[in-house]
Amino acid sequence: MPESAAAVQQPGREPFGSRLAAAMAARGPLCVGIDPHPGLLADWGLNDDVAGLERFSLTVVEAVATLAAAVKPQVALYERHGSAGMAVLERTLAAASDAGVLSIADAKRGDIGSTMAAYADAWLRDGSSLAADSVTLSPYLGFESLRPALDLAAGSGRGVFVLALTSNPEGKSVQHVGGSESVARRIVEAAAEENRRYAGAPGSVGMGSVGLVVGATVGTALVDLGLDLNAVQGPILAPGLGAQGATPADLRATFGEAYPAVLATSSRGILAAGPAVAGLRSSTESTRDGLLNG
Amino acid sequence: MPESAAAVQQPGREPFGSRLAAAMAARGPLCVGIDPHPGLLADWGLNDDVAGLERFSLTVVEAVATLAAAVKPQVALYERHGSAGMAVLERTLAAASDAGVLSIADAKRGDIGSTMAAYADAWLRDGSSLAADSVTLSPYLGFESLRPALDLAAGSGRGVFVLALTSNPEGKSVQHVGGSESVARRIVEAAAEENRRYAGAPGSVGMGSVGLVVGATVGTALVDLGLDLNAVQGPILAPGLGAQGATPADLRATFGEAYPAVLATSSRGILAAGPAVAGLRSSTESTRDGLLNG
Repeated sequence: MPESAAAVQQPGREPFGSRLAAAMAARGPLCVGIDPHPGLLADWGLNDDVAGLERFSLTVVEAVATLAAAVKPQVALYERHGSAGMAVLERTLAAASDAGVLSIADAKRGDIGSTMAAYADAWLRDGSSLAADSVTLSPYLGFESLRPALDLAAGSGRGVFVLALTSNPEGKSVQHVGGSESVARRIVEAAAEENRRYAGAPGSVGMGSVGLVVGATVGTALVDLGLDLNAVQGPILAPGLGAQGATPADLRATFGEAYPAVLATSSRGILAAGPAVAGLRSSTESTRDGLLNG
Repeated sequence: MPESAAAVQQPGREPFGSRLAAAMAARGPLCVGIDPHPGLLADWGLNDDVAGLERFSLTVVEAVATLAAAVKPQVALYERHGSAGMAVLERTLAAASDAGVLSIADAKRGDIGSTMAAYADAWLRDGSSLAADSVTLSPYLGFESLRPALDLAAGSGRGVFVLALTSNPEGKSVQHVGGSESVARRIVEAAAEENRRYAGAPGSVGMGSVGLVVGATVGTALVDLGLDLNAVQGPILAPGLGAQGATPADLRATFGEAYPAVLATSSRGILAAGPAVAGLRSSTESTRDGLLNG
């Protein structure tokens, strides 16, 4: 079990949930995914190499840093270029921080014990070259196996987004299993409990720092599985806006009362407007406005 | 769906399952975990930095490359040192290959679609700086979400180990859910089906290339959940030997008929004998002999 929130709270940095809530209130609930897929690099006239990766990544940060609530680099697409690609990710995360936009490292890491602590060290520890404002985690080993990351995030003013319910059809074979006590429901309830634990931490303004990943196109699965996202009191990262098929109206219908906590992610729908910074900005603004008015 | 096994089989490299079966027959069923934890680095008189990480890793490879069936670097412990740590992992994997020992990158990656394809590219593609003989994967998004890695592994003579059943107590809240159709059982059955698909591939000698991760200390859970590991016809990576509590006799009792497919992993129990190469060799030999005679 962790030390009390007050004891481990990092001085000088507000909790991630509070920082994200402020960014969403000021800029709208949009996260721009930084997904340097080989096809997108080609569309931008860039090579599928580390130079192309860096140009792509820094261009997106430059374009959207003042418009989006957060940026979400997809770690797999950096890892694909080996250690040199991971060095580009380090520079991308640093650029986001310098430009004043929150970062979500989409890494989907998960392990147990001292190995999980090492992943937490990598993504959530002050001084780590890969440190982001938050990281996505995968709970096949159980929500509680993520404890080292939950505690380090709470102690350093950072956050996590735990995979809960996704819209890919094969996800059901794990997440929907268990009937009224489904795997997804257990993850949602554990996240809610974790945010309640820290609800009184200094600097907290209502949104917890333990978020979930829930696909924007899960349809009626939230109702079917009895998932109470409103009780989570943390951010809901919802990939699937735009190119993947969800409209702003779909998001409101799917998430209902929990919609104010939803951080919608768009990647290719926005990135296709590059490489010109002006085009990326315009696409980001129109996507954001669609969310605000949808 | 993949192309037929014959169509995608890489010329000149036998399937991973066949290569691992041969190594286990020749050397015994031991995998040495390369786990450069901060505490172990200190015990070896090394700093917790990339120089210490490299010295540690290359020493283990040098010591055990002719004795172990495989080595398993724990990716989290390299990632913890950022891109420079990942560069050490690249050199460690290259050293293992040069020294003639199979490698298992313990990365527990998992995602969907083109993102999963990017992870497959990183760990399983010829020419990738991080390419290993095999990689561990995490199936929270469903076994079938791992398809890009399954197909790339089959096509390049490499392998995967999919998390199925672990011994950490919180793992039950996901893996045991679903009664007689538990999440773990679905993973086991999907792996079995996948190995059956490739059973007739050129060079195949009876052990498939789709393995599972099953903790050495799961006790009676295999029986309780009705998991038929013998039907998998692929390697079972079993962490937990030695320092984590399982004896060779425990392994035989736990895995029963499937024991011949079990690749037992020991990390700290062997690594504590370093930094002297002679000590590491002696510890590796006695651990292996314990497995053969236990």
